[in-house]
Amino acid sequence: MFKVNQNYGRLQGSYLFSEIARRVAAYTEAHPEKDVIRLGIGDVTRPLAPAVVEAIKRAADEMAQPGAFRGYGPEQGYDFLREAIVAGDYAARGVSISTDEIFVSDGSKCDTGNMQELFSEDCKIAVTDPVYPVYVDTNVMAGRSGGFDAERGEYSAITYLPVTVENNFVPALPRGDVDAVYLCSPNNPTGTALKSADLKKWVDWANANGALILFDGAYERFITSTDVPHSIYEIDGAKTCAIEFRSFSKTAGFTGTRCAYTVVPKELFGKGENGEDVSLHAMWNRRHSTKFNGVSYIIQRGAEATYSQEGAAQVRRDIDAYMENARIILDGLRGAGISAYGGADSPYVWLKTPGGMKSWDFFDKLLTEANVVGTPGSGFGRAGEGYFRLTAFGTKENTQKAIERLKNLK
Amino acid sequence: MFKVNQNYGRLQGSYLFSEIARRVAAYTEAHPEKDVIRLGIGDVTRPLAPAVVEAIKRAADEMAQPGAFRGYGPEQGYDFLREAIVAGDYAARGVSISTDEIFVSDGSKCDTGNMQELFSEDCKIAVTDPVYPVYVDTNVMAGRSGGFDAERGEYSAITYLPVTVENNFVPALPRGDVDAVYLCSPNNPTGTALKSADLKKWVDWANANGALILFDGAYERFITSTDVPHSIYEIDGAKTCAIEFRSFSKTAGFTGTRCAYTVVPKELFGKGENGEDVSLHAMWNRRHSTKFNGVSYIIQRGAEATYSQEGAAQVRRDIDAYMENARIILDGLRGAGISAYGGADSPYVWLKTPGGMKSWDFFDKLLTEANVVGTPGSGFGRAGEGYFRLTAFGTKENTQKAIERLKNLK
Repeated sequence: MFKVNQNYGRLQGSYLFSEIARRVAAYTEAHPEKDVIRLGIGDVTRPLAPAVVEAIKRAADEMAQPGAFRGYGPEQGYDFLREAIVAGDYAARGVSISTDEIFVSDGSKCDTGNMQELFSEDCKIAVTDPVYPVYVDTNVMAGRSGGFDAERGEYSAITYLPVTVENNFVPALPRGDVDAVYLCSPNNPTGTALKSADLKKWVDWANANGALILFDGAYERFITSTDVPHSIYEIDGAKTCAIEFRSFSKTAGFTGTRCAYTVVPKELFGKGENGEDVSLHAMWNRRHSTKFNGVSYIIQRGAEATYSQEGAAQVRRDIDAYMENARIILDGLRGAGISAYGGADSPYVWLKTPGGMKSWDFFDKLLTEANVVGTPGSGFGRAGEGYFRLTAFGTKENTQKAIERLKNLK
Repeated sequence: MFKVNQNYGRLQGSYLFSEIARRVAAYTEAHPEKDVIRLGIGDVTRPLAPAVVEAIKRAADEMAQPGAFRGYGPEQGYDFLREAIVAGDYAARGVSISTDEIFVSDGSKCDTGNMQELFSEDCKIAVTDPVYPVYVDTNVMAGRSGGFDAERGEYSAITYLPVTVENNFVPALPRGDVDAVYLCSPNNPTGTALKSADLKKWVDWANANGALILFDGAYERFITSTDVPHSIYEIDGAKTCAIEFRSFSKTAGFTGTRCAYTVVPKELFGKGENGEDVSLHAMWNRRHSTKFNGVSYIIQRGAEATYSQEGAAQVRRDIDAYMENARIILDGLRGAGISAYGGADSPYVWLKTPGGMKSWDFFDKLLTEANVVGTPGSGFGRAGEGYFRLTAFGTKENTQKAIERLKNLK
């Protein structure tokens, strides 16, 4: 008799974006004349850089030629891309990472979701609150969450680390037993980033406790503050305690094109059955080559092009355009007397709802009175209640218009 | 203290292809003047079809245009591709599959490897022997294998179903308790295919026992026999017991381009904690959308092009060319008095080593005396000992040359 993985029964519905869509559809149907501006979605809108498109088309042409055609590639990614990543993202910042510590993949969602397969079943995990739901859900599926407490909106065996105005959006080190912690910086959804000194505390804690840090750096390219590290490996000691996730999705507009990578240092070990050191690099290599077959050659050539002089400049212009939108949002909100955070090192602005409104109430008010769509902070976790996310991924014109309307909110 | 998933410690090294590479390298180094022909690799060599390349380039151009650019797509795949699959691969054969039962992915290796996440931890699995190693290894990683018996070369908790000359390469129904079985037809590595009557017995067994069939149809497009079903859903009752995996890898030369799909019927249920029915379609949808972010839009357009009139004809010509090679191998071997199987519905020919030689001994003989590389059958499992795999993915010229040499073997 075929029985299913019962952990799936503990998953909570992910109603956030479907509920947003439902409310927006209901409103636009009732008010078809209204010009609704969407600043809720965490997806890029600017086209792929011309250098990327050219590289993709060149690679496609190669695939049409008998001598140049490529079948199965290395599961870990082609050396041309791994070397470009090492040179462009690490060596250029004085961080020494070797080519074979880079694992090219089709997305950071996949990698952050799959990495927990290397954990023991009883591994105790911690996440920040609010949080990107994939970290939690993939551990629920694997049976590490404990039961769901509907009243608290939390799983019993997961440690939640609030990040709020009160702690300046810097999670406190866990007090209880934690074996692995997910940190995202610059953060989705709060838009804030951990400074070197903050991250150093986490690295020291992890090394002292034999814990693992899953460092999600998908928004790295948006960093402008000089005291915010671009890689966790800029922090002394990180190679013995941290895995880093990076993506071309937001960096280079690859959300629909799909390419990312993960760094698993060779100095990184977990404990085996008898307390022996087990290489996480070797484990991930085995996992990656058993359950994955590499990213499309054509797409890897596109990703490589983001490191060329021309490609890097084009990608930079797109990032700058989004960051100009973030500035418009941030200035506009503050000008309107609304407390707003993030936006300096990320495309997300996290605002405190005026008058302590509930996140969903503010969503409704914004939608109906200003015709602007954002994302209720409570959708990302309990500590997100009373907050609201706006994104800088729209056009400049729409962003300006939305902020003007926000300023006139009663 | 971070502890690792101890099941990884039970994985056996996968030495097959690295050992082949080592022996070939040693030989060619010692005999640089020899013209070694490789018929060992299971990878395509013919370029992508022109219609596919054109579609990829057109999609890349769209991604460069503000109005046409696409960010995140549906995790399950774009409707244009899912509809083309339904029409081209199912409706055309009189099989009714709905669009939302199709899950587009980046590879059947990934899907066959990931599907076991839906199984209970104590699910008892069965595989054929010889077998594609991914089915076994991914269940080892998940803790379903039991210990490895080095003497037998088998895991204690996995049921192995031999497929050999003796049973005409049709696996017998399991005698013991089995909850899920992996069937690959046309088969890698034996090249043989299950006929409708064979498959009907499996479907009936699965429905009678509440078991699940994981049906790997990656080589479907190579079928020429009229009594071999192209889809398990051609068999009555399959929708309540089977998941089907399909791939563009061998079908359309996508091994380095990456696109595949999996069919999970909505009539398919497993048992939950309290014996209740749980929809596998809903579970896989949740898994797919939580841990995967869709296949590149550009690549999906390439896959779609294999269903256009022009694309389908081009892809057909490639398949026909490979199958002509298979015929050359099969006829040559038989002409040389060697028993050979498969090759009629698949690009693989499975031969019985002359004089009952061990697979690796025949490998060495073939390499040194005929300068031809194949794959030892014992590398795919205990029941593969005494067998040997040749593939039809080379050029016609090389295939003919290799077979001439084989005929002259002493």
